[in-house]
Amino acid sequence: MIRTHYSTQITPEMNGGSVTVCGWAHEIRDLGGITFLVVRDREGLIQVTLFKKTIDKNVLDIVRNLSRESVVAVTGNVKKEAKAPNGYEIVPAAVAVLGKAESPLPMDTTGKVDADLDTRLDARFMDMRRPGTQAIFRIRHLIQKSVREFLGGEGFIEITTPKVVATATEGGTALFPITYFEREAFLNQSPQLFKQLMMSGGLDRVFEIGPIFRAEEHDTRKHLNEATSIDIEASFLDNEDVMVILENLVKYVYSSVAENGERYLKTLGVEPKIPKTPFARVTYDKAISIARDNGEKIEWGDDLTTESEHSIGETVGEHYFIVDWPTKIKPFYVMPYENKPEICRAFDMMHPRMELSSGAQRVHSYELLHSRITEQGLNADGFEFYLKAFRYGMPPHAGWGLGAERLLMTMLGVENIREVVLFPRDRKRLSP
Amino acid sequence: MIRTHYSTQITPEMNGGSVTVCGWAHEIRDLGGITFLVVRDREGLIQVTLFKKTIDKNVLDIVRNLSRESVVAVTGNVKKEAKAPNGYEIVPAAVAVLGKAESPLPMDTTGKVDADLDTRLDARFMDMRRPGTQAIFRIRHLIQKSVREFLGGEGFIEITTPKVVATATEGGTALFPITYFEREAFLNQSPQLFKQLMMSGGLDRVFEIGPIFRAEEHDTRKHLNEATSIDIEASFLDNEDVMVILENLVKYVYSSVAENGERYLKTLGVEPKIPKTPFARVTYDKAISIARDNGEKIEWGDDLTTESEHSIGETVGEHYFIVDWPTKIKPFYVMPYENKPEICRAFDMMHPRMELSSGAQRVHSYELLHSRITEQGLNADGFEFYLKAFRYGMPPHAGWGLGAERLLMTMLGVENIREVVLFPRDRKRLSP
Repeated sequence: MIRTHYSTQITPEMNGGSVTVCGWAHEIRDLGGITFLVVRDREGLIQVTLFKKTIDKNVLDIVRNLSRESVVAVTGNVKKEAKAPNGYEIVPAAVAVLGKAESPLPMDTTGKVDADLDTRLDARFMDMRRPGTQAIFRIRHLIQKSVREFLGGEGFIEITTPKVVATATEGGTALFPITYFEREAFLNQSPQLFKQLMMSGGLDRVFEIGPIFRAEEHDTRKHLNEATSIDIEASFLDNEDVMVILENLVKYVYSSVAENGERYLKTLGVEPKIPKTPFARVTYDKAISIARDNGEKIEWGDDLTTESEHSIGETVGEHYFIVDWPTKIKPFYVMPYENKPEICRAFDMMHPRMELSSGAQRVHSYELLHSRITEQGLNADGFEFYLKAFRYGMPPHAGWGLGAERLLMTMLGVENIREVVLFPRDRKRLSP
Repeated sequence: MIRTHYSTQITPEMNGGSVTVCGWAHEIRDLGGITFLVVRDREGLIQVTLFKKTIDKNVLDIVRNLSRESVVAVTGNVKKEAKAPNGYEIVPAAVAVLGKAESPLPMDTTGKVDADLDTRLDARFMDMRRPGTQAIFRIRHLIQKSVREFLGGEGFIEITTPKVVATATEGGTALFPITYFEREAFLNQSPQLFKQLMMSGGLDRVFEIGPIFRAEEHDTRKHLNEATSIDIEASFLDNEDVMVILENLVKYVYSSVAENGERYLKTLGVEPKIPKTPFARVTYDKAISIARDNGEKIEWGDDLTTESEHSIGETVGEHYFIVDWPTKIKPFYVMPYENKPEICRAFDMMHPRMELSSGAQRVHSYELLHSRITEQGLNADGFEFYLKAFRYGMPPHAGWGLGAERLLMTMLGVENIREVVLFPRDRKRLSP
């Protein structure tokens, strides 16, 4: 290991001690008698100070000839210095150039010059050197970690379901076809059917965090063709039970990021408000009446448009659920109410800006499920592998899928979903 | 929530208390004056006892007519009973049938009748009800959890890289093609190139646990066409540094499973030996000489055959590394030794039965990488998005990929890799 310390592991009290730091040449300032090299590592900045009178001529030459953003390892002594960034500087004995950077750079990394999103995504390796970009992905890591902590604590078991499948989950056409040896297969839109199979299998509470693929031709700031879904499914629970799990999860994740990600939130200049639970339950009927009051033309049975979501979101003003949806606009596996089958036990969980999650109590009766599939114009034969599991002891169950990127972007107030994915995939973007 | 307690949450001390348990009708024994219903939930078995003299006639009828593997909710009083499985039984006030099971069942779940693997995989929802199968996936969960704990503790950040890509990672032909809108794309073989980009980006230490896809036509007990890879990449470290991380990870995972998965190991009847670190370092030269001593015909520069791996594995007898591989049989991104470029800083980490992981220090010089790509007969133009990152400050770095399924199957002594994947994908199997 070349590095002995990250920037943040060195303190002024280490005065006189020898260290090796590694990072990028963030800034080089040559004032004649004194030269400053600011080295940036993952955790912060380190001032390296070269006094012309005492410094080895070779070391000075290396630093004077260094191009910005080159990778260096600096070995030297810590010197307490109140005026330096963290109260210390390093007086180098040796500077090694480990990776030279060409000039000009493909984009500015100091944040002084605005780069458009396409330029940044084309040079994501460079964009990642901007503190704001790194902060987003450090928080993304914290969110995934806290989701697993929370669900683990609630007794959920992590599973892995296949991404290459023979049948569309929801019978839709928004599928990417794959040539799977001599057959046609598809990229899975959702782990829905597989996580339900595990309910029949008795795993009782399962979750998965994994990629989902949708071949929709939208080009918006909140859609991706490859996204990360946080999915749960739980037996012997109903829609209301898994809604409580969901709102508590969101609250836990916000609290956990506030606690462990303070530094990154500060870098981004945001202070996400921890949502209060329980979230408001807004019925679909109420939702369309709000949308109509806001001038939307919407009929009972229509799906909510983005505009409707916005007007409802503005009225509610915080995370909320939309419940009691028309059965006909929800997937076949959603359970209709026994006493009013035109509406169903489905819910969407909303941030005022957009939908974050969709879930429901599921149909667990083989007969009802079979007829629901047929009613929706789908061929039940294609679902045989799934339907079979409902004939040999399927418990009542419920679950949801939560968009990881949407959770992150709404938490941080990020405008475009592509900002929170390392290498987004959309209608046009397939590389890097 | 219907359930008040899992089987393991009830104790004889709760004698007289009211509970509701949920699960599957594991066994029904009608002895005339007394009827036993054994309910199985995720955690264990519960004896429900119906005394003909005192039981409600309707409840008795429900239980007598119950088919095996139907789903029930039983509400009743806990009764201390030394002869019952956990020292208690339940005297039911109500039994609700929540999901009826048809007869005959598609496979036996008691373990009394052997089912072949294909039957089990076709009815995975039923197979999962066998304690041995569930134990495997409970341990799989524990492994993923402990890997994240270990890597998090070592400062690694979890990342998500795209599974839909424009270019083959290693230029190989073993790719599944996708129709991505009007273009051709591929399923990614490995996050290799993307995790390296993040080294240029300064994330310093990253990991990913995600699906990888290989269109190889093998049909063996240790290959899958869709598998889970545990990948790391770390800057300012060399091959030896990441080997130490790898061996410590394996040891940590084994220890963690021994500590937290005792119940499941007992169910499976295995006691995995926690590997001792450091693992032996066997040079490639030594490895082929062992293989030759065992009668293999193998030339310097050949890749090791399965037979060679077995003979070396038997000689070493525990986890080990094979190091100092011929450069020409390793991918272009592997760093050759400076003073002996015909061998390289690559390693394989082996269990005596098979390879578990492959890793290396990487080439971080743009010029060397470009010529390595060209030397291997690949077109550098297809790697432009990747090569670019090496021109603007790429640190030295190293990493590895570890097969999650192989780690699990070798730990548990499972013969066929399909046993440790919920819904395996191979040459023939695309459903369920």
